[in-house]
Amino acid sequence: MKRIALSCVAAAIVAFTAQAAAPPSPSPADWREVDPQNLVLLDTRYGQVAIELAPEFAPVNAARFKALVRAHFYDGKTFYRVIDGFVAQGGIGEGTAATKDHPKDDATDRLWPTLKAEFDRPVGTDVTFTPLGSPDLFAPEVGHVDGFPVGRDAREGRMWIIHCPGTLAFARDDKPDTASTEFYIVIGEAPRRLDRNLTAFGRVIAGLQYIQKLERGDPDVDAGVIEDVAKQDPILRVQIAADLPAAAQPHFQVMRTESQAFDAKKDEKRNITSTFFFRKPPAILDVCLMPVAVKRSGP
Amino acid sequence: MKRIALSCVAAAIVAFTAQAAAPPSPSPADWREVDPQNLVLLDTRYGQVAIELAPEFAPVNAARFKALVRAHFYDGKTFYRVIDGFVAQGGIGEGTAATKDHPKDDATDRLWPTLKAEFDRPVGTDVTFTPLGSPDLFAPEVGHVDGFPVGRDAREGRMWIIHCPGTLAFARDDKPDTASTEFYIVIGEAPRRLDRNLTAFGRVIAGLQYIQKLERGDPDVDAGVIEDVAKQDPILRVQIAADLPAAAQPHFQVMRTESQAFDAKKDEKRNITSTFFFRKPPAILDVCLMPVAVKRSGP
Repeated sequence: MKRIALSCVAAAIVAFTAQAAAPPSPSPADWREVDPQNLVLLDTRYGQVAIELAPEFAPVNAARFKALVRAHFYDGKTFYRVIDGFVAQGGIGEGTAATKDHPKDDATDRLWPTLKAEFDRPVGTDVTFTPLGSPDLFAPEVGHVDGFPVGRDAREGRMWIIHCPGTLAFARDDKPDTASTEFYIVIGEAPRRLDRNLTAFGRVIAGLQYIQKLERGDPDVDAGVIEDVAKQDPILRVQIAADLPAAAQPHFQVMRTESQAFDAKKDEKRNITSTFFFRKPPAILDVCLMPVAVKRSGP
Repeated sequence: MKRIALSCVAAAIVAFTAQAAAPPSPSPADWREVDPQNLVLLDTRYGQVAIELAPEFAPVNAARFKALVRAHFYDGKTFYRVIDGFVAQGGIGEGTAATKDHPKDDATDRLWPTLKAEFDRPVGTDVTFTPLGSPDLFAPEVGHVDGFPVGRDAREGRMWIIHCPGTLAFARDDKPDTASTEFYIVIGEAPRRLDRNLTAFGRVIAGLQYIQKLERGDPDVDAGVIEDVAKQDPILRVQIAADLPAAAQPHFQVMRTESQAFDAKKDEKRNITSTFFFRKPPAILDVCLMPVAVKRSGP
């Protein structure tokens, strides 16, 4: 009885990490090194966030984001619109009440014109889609490509990155082809209605908890924009890992979602055998709840 | 063009608050005052969290939580196990590595013996279940009772509170009837596999963003327990609103989920008409993504 609290913890662990003890252990071949050219390091005051870009899903939008990063566009800007349970939106926030005294200059529009949307892409042979093997309410089929949660419509021959917690996408105006500089990261229950309606081009692979710590706006006031600029959390610095000196580059490996090792993880999560579960849950996977393991090495 | 950023915001607003401009406006009869006897005010260093208890789903467990609150059991304790994307667990954390030098005394076990589980309850006539009207992958039927997200199995004649972000439940040991003092609040994508496996007895109705700010543990180390006690965020104080002087009591109203006003909100969220949506999303509602409006008045 004296161990009840420990047992509580240990038991709850089972519920969370049933997928952690996979038989057999993944081999080196089951891991993919994240290309440092697609690895974004975003510093907040709470810690560093690592994001992998997915140019295979949105080449033009991903390239724009990298160009913005390399131009130090985001450094010193803020997360100006943060809605709990929904998204954290960052960038210049031009035209919002928060920045009404600091209108964007015309040069910004000239430098960073609006982009053609890349809401989805053709199903192709350049990447490997691995079905999740569970039904989904929003897409005909869901699964993974290179660790990204992906929806697929075989009839239409299209696929797209799903809005899960951690998904990175560009905000836009009412018209489709109007994204330019403002981005958001999903921080709440997956807002799947946004799938194929905005251009998603990356996902957070480490440090999402630091985005969760960002100061929130009031969704009922100015759409969640934090009107007191002093309260907006800054984007301290954003860098592409490849631009750092080799010795300063962190390295990330993502489990290959086309591997048998990942298949085994899915089976394990789908078919819960822990005795903690008094009632066996349905053998269902949610694509946004299926963790894709990430390892970090280096500084 | 100079308004692109504002437009971005305004457009994204639409995506988020399409449900906010309901026709017709809810009337006073569409709102239910939260019973101050079931209203818990939990102070963190980031802000106050308001929780509504659901004794109609778990009378014994909800009563225990109130008794613990009134005994000041949680005051000065911590959120000692916080896993990003999953749960924030609070209480004494006895037996964890973090508190290994402070074993629980036997008096705690005698004062707060383990409880019989209340994982679900009979479908009854004392409360009104309103179906969501959308399919669900985990339960035969989902909907709401008094604002709580609820699953129902008509064949078995049972219903239960669903694990959505904000759901409050007791942690337990491996055996079902082992909850005593440790609680958790869901902070990530709904962990539906926990439904009917733990006793859920409340939900956060305001201030979940403060729970999101809590210091996280490393899920790969000691099951997410924050080993450095100094880094654990404290539970500053927990109170039952009814125990405060009348003038100091906040008042919360929750939209009646059995009302036509709520039906209209559901229809509006299900059938998105905003021109922002280039592609009309499937007419699907997720029970954890259907907001139940809350109004606050008083101090």
